[in-house]
Amino acid sequence: MRYELYYWTGIQGRGEYVRLALEDAGADYIDVARERGDKAIMPFLRGKQGGALPFAPPFLKAGRAVIAQTATILAYLGPRLGMVPGGLSAEIYAQQLQLTIADFVVEIHDTHHPIAASDYYEAQRGAARERTQVFRDERLPKFLDYFEHVLERGNGRQALSRHSYVDLSLFQLISGLDYAFPNAMRRMQKRIPRLRALAERIAERPNIAAYLASPRRISFNEEGIFRHYPELDPRR
Amino acid sequence: MRYELYYWTGIQGRGEYVRLALEDAGADYIDVARERGDKAIMPFLRGKQGGALPFAPPFLKAGRAVIAQTATILAYLGPRLGMVPGGLSAEIYAQQLQLTIADFVVEIHDTHHPIAASDYYEAQRGAARERTQVFRDERLPKFLDYFEHVLERGNGRQALSRHSYVDLSLFQLISGLDYAFPNAMRRMQKRIPRLRALAERIAERPNIAAYLASPRRISFNEEGIFRHYPELDPRR
Repeated sequence: MRYELYYWTGIQGRGEYVRLALEDAGADYIDVARERGDKAIMPFLRGKQGGALPFAPPFLKAGRAVIAQTATILAYLGPRLGMVPGGLSAEIYAQQLQLTIADFVVEIHDTHHPIAASDYYEAQRGAARERTQVFRDERLPKFLDYFEHVLERGNGRQALSRHSYVDLSLFQLISGLDYAFPNAMRRMQKRIPRLRALAERIAERPNIAAYLASPRRISFNEEGIFRHYPELDPRR
Repeated sequence: MRYELYYWTGIQGRGEYVRLALEDAGADYIDVARERGDKAIMPFLRGKQGGALPFAPPFLKAGRAVIAQTATILAYLGPRLGMVPGGLSAEIYAQQLQLTIADFVVEIHDTHHPIAASDYYEAQRGAARERTQVFRDERLPKFLDYFEHVLERGNGRQALSRHSYVDLSLFQLISGLDYAFPNAMRRMQKRIPRLRALAERIAERPNIAAYLASPRRISFNEEGIFRHYPELDPRR
């Protein structure tokens, strides 16, 4: 099966979680908008295509099926790409973790866009500074401590002790946070040894290493979810 | 199977989406914190119990399994309660829609808490007014138009043409939005005839009608996700 991934060009965005799974599995896929432009996405959003109606990219075309929402795409691909071994209970736990990652991603995005996703960062700078302080002090530690705790419990004793799409998404989270908030992440360093080890392990997987070195991996930038604005990441 | 639902007392919150599914199906369940207090939730959040580690309530205990994240709980319950008929493609579409509802719920929450979920509304009133204006003008119409479009496409032709947990969640959305933003919802009235018909149909289902009339249905209030603050819902 040749999968078709639809996601906006120019940013990693939420498409990246799907891309990492497809790349790691060596799946056959086309990154449609990168070949045909963002306009290839529009007929789906306007309901001019059959199948499920996506609210927004990313969505995946798999044969005649259209599947939207990052976590749902991963739930679909997981068993098909051998990326969530362990049966139903592992699949359910993986989804739960992926949805918690999705919640975290919303909060990361909203640090620079607390008022209006449709407006420029520069138009909401004051609120962004306030929200990001709360994010750095409360939410970042809460989410990272949680995932560290999940990994600590997971050691061999239960579901997700083996490689899954959740590991790839955690790698993406850590990479993005290192880019956006290097100072805050340095302060978290000693609290997340298992997340750090996981991120290093993922970066060294042959297909991921090849992908990261390829032009297919767009750099983090200030159009995406993980943005580096020095005023949002003070040294203290 | 007797399910155990864990969710904070005093608000409908995200637990309500699960509660509606359990009630509609006539499932055997205990609303644990309402019987034993919120403290019954803490051992799970602290990792003192086996099974998956929840980030936050709601979570469901089903035998020895612990399942967290509203949409994941519904994905698990759906086929077991006969609440997502139509096989795998219907299950996938239902999840996609439920995750879009979850995204919408975050945005609804953040209208009154754009800066800090941990702080009082009164401490972030100015930002709330700005964010809610964008919500009323852009996000509310965008999400409601989307779900109306989904229902329009769905008529008999495809997945989700039959009753599912998504219908119950859409009912909850419409009910909550009517409570929080009566003026904005009045302006949307003519654009969402199918959503209105669905909400009325759900309210009349015998088990739901009985539930809504029971003391188990907590009223909407200003501690929950859907809050009515007149200054956030001007008449224009």
